[in-house]
Amino acid sequence: MKAGQFYAKEDIRVTEVPKPEPKDNEVLIDIEWCGICGSDLHEYIIGPMAIPSVKPHPLTKEVLPITMGHEFCGRIVSAPSDSTLKPGQAVMVDPRLYCSSCSRCASQATNTCYSWGFHGLSGNGGGFSESIVVDASMCYAIPDSSLDLAALIEPLAVAWHAVRASGREDFSSESALILGGGPVGIAVLLVLRAKGTKQVFVSEPTAKRAEQNAELADAVFNPIKEKVAERCIEKTGGEGVGYVFDCAGIQAGMNDGMGALRHQGVYVNVAGWEKPIVVPQLDLMLKEISVTGSLAYDDRDFKETVEAFVDGNFKGVEKMVTSRIHLDDVLEKGFVELVKNKDDHIKILVTPNRKNLGQKK
Amino acid sequence: MKAGQFYAKEDIRVTEVPKPEPKDNEVLIDIEWCGICGSDLHEYIIGPMAIPSVKPHPLTKEVLPITMGHEFCGRIVSAPSDSTLKPGQAVMVDPRLYCSSCSRCASQATNTCYSWGFHGLSGNGGGFSESIVVDASMCYAIPDSSLDLAALIEPLAVAWHAVRASGREDFSSESALILGGGPVGIAVLLVLRAKGTKQVFVSEPTAKRAEQNAELADAVFNPIKEKVAERCIEKTGGEGVGYVFDCAGIQAGMNDGMGALRHQGVYVNVAGWEKPIVVPQLDLMLKEISVTGSLAYDDRDFKETVEAFVDGNFKGVEKMVTSRIHLDDVLEKGFVELVKNKDDHIKILVTPNRKNLGQKK
Repeated sequence: MKAGQFYAKEDIRVTEVPKPEPKDNEVLIDIEWCGICGSDLHEYIIGPMAIPSVKPHPLTKEVLPITMGHEFCGRIVSAPSDSTLKPGQAVMVDPRLYCSSCSRCASQATNTCYSWGFHGLSGNGGGFSESIVVDASMCYAIPDSSLDLAALIEPLAVAWHAVRASGREDFSSESALILGGGPVGIAVLLVLRAKGTKQVFVSEPTAKRAEQNAELADAVFNPIKEKVAERCIEKTGGEGVGYVFDCAGIQAGMNDGMGALRHQGVYVNVAGWEKPIVVPQLDLMLKEISVTGSLAYDDRDFKETVEAFVDGNFKGVEKMVTSRIHLDDVLEKGFVELVKNKDDHIKILVTPNRKNLGQKK
Repeated sequence: MKAGQFYAKEDIRVTEVPKPEPKDNEVLIDIEWCGICGSDLHEYIIGPMAIPSVKPHPLTKEVLPITMGHEFCGRIVSAPSDSTLKPGQAVMVDPRLYCSSCSRCASQATNTCYSWGFHGLSGNGGGFSESIVVDASMCYAIPDSSLDLAALIEPLAVAWHAVRASGREDFSSESALILGGGPVGIAVLLVLRAKGTKQVFVSEPTAKRAEQNAELADAVFNPIKEKVAERCIEKTGGEGVGYVFDCAGIQAGMNDGMGALRHQGVYVNVAGWEKPIVVPQLDLMLKEISVTGSLAYDDRDFKETVEAFVDGNFKGVEKMVTSRIHLDDVLEKGFVELVKNKDDHIKILVTPNRKNLGQKK
């Protein structure tokens, strides 16, 4: 079968690989759609980072070449006989790998398993391929009608976890600022809307992304032209926002976000940073702010995100998809396109099935 | 009456000032003891910082010279007729000034009042003097037997708030690391012990302070000679401590503390930093740590600290006092001594009353 594999930095190839065979507890899935994630792009531009290159991943024992793609959905081809999943069933897959035996897994913090990994980054196949084998327990049945957008559940689960990491359940009287209106920022925006957040602001410098966000946010600020902290304080009766979600990972954003927060506000970092994180001391101290890290998602997050997705709670989620391409084109129309025209895109979805693109096989 | 006043950097004078006269809601107090705080020392070495020099403080309307000292207790001389406080009553004073009308005061966050100040830093008299007038509502009656050490309630309240800022109530199954075994660090240690914390470790490089802390802590690590994070992980079954209290404010401490924390551990910063705070990204993200700021204390903290103090819950609190001096000597035996021999001291207490020192008047 075909698979889009990472060989090295700037070297992704669509090649023929053996079709995987399921073990007792596993299902075989034909992939329908798989999103290209920012972390995939990072691997392409400056990797291998998360992808094991020399030392095999502790769970998969694999090193590169690695089939990429961890935001994938598909249809069951075969399932264990005792499974409720039957051939033809549409499913979204929680693509994480975890050991289930370390102390973190034992306390349900499977997102920080000491051996954490992902299908599509760590081995055990990936979503940029025709088929994949995964543990049956990681599959969530979804209606056929959801299959077209279901791959977005994965980035939405990242956002869902970040919003949970804020420590708040009820956002109906709360205001939030999202730093960076890219794929993760928009996913956080959708989750905050699904949770009924009173006001959501986005700080985003590029015109195209600002426009995309403006359809869902109460206001989008241009951090190059506007004083984002002051605007947030104005729009919250002089108090500041309760929550900041950093989906940008740059110092100017941190400074704006810390300035925008109210007393005892919470700053959730969802971004990877390329430079050191300097926390403005006066804001931290005088406003007693909490800065907290959020990593991926756990079982509960994924389950709740699937449910919210199937229930139609992510209004406007379809706006996230800016391009649909065939697996054959994953390099040029996927990775290279994102490098060249990143700001034009939120999410590019990849399919191995030409029928999904309205094309003949 | 005599008062120790701040005129400028390295210029503190004991001078004659008018005795204050109480208004309707105020009590006149004869000071018994007042501690020298690290922030007093900062003012002396590099001030004026919190002390108003050009722009008058919004609540007191004063500028320097300012009578210093905000950790003080004493005896009531006169009180409003409707007060339960009677002449002769021993009291500890919550020395804070706040407006009671801003949005933060309205939400009980009086510690972060938009106009916050302190007796002894912002005007309205201070504890390095013979008498002071304060709002009757800020006085806490204490037994005569507590008067000798009651001034320590103020730094203990700072620690009490920091421990509350961690978000945890029950510490009986928890472990904590304190960075810096100075006055604030030891106060946090006493509070954590009062709260029944399972294990408390201190990172302290100086031998003298390490010795002082060793009497109360489960272990004291020397951060210059030992890998503090590794030691903490060892001593917590491989998981790391749940809480770090930064009472040092230096980057090496931050790095140790973040390394020592377990998944979803909390890093409470109680220290003022002279350099930027760089938060180690990998720890923040992969362990989903929260870094939170703690500032002073609020009404509830002070009340609870007085109660815990009077109930004798701060075992070993007397070890905090390393010197008792007369107000006349506050410069040489107080501030200058702390500059010269800082590590020899935890808290120096100052009295205007020679009888308290066993001396004739």
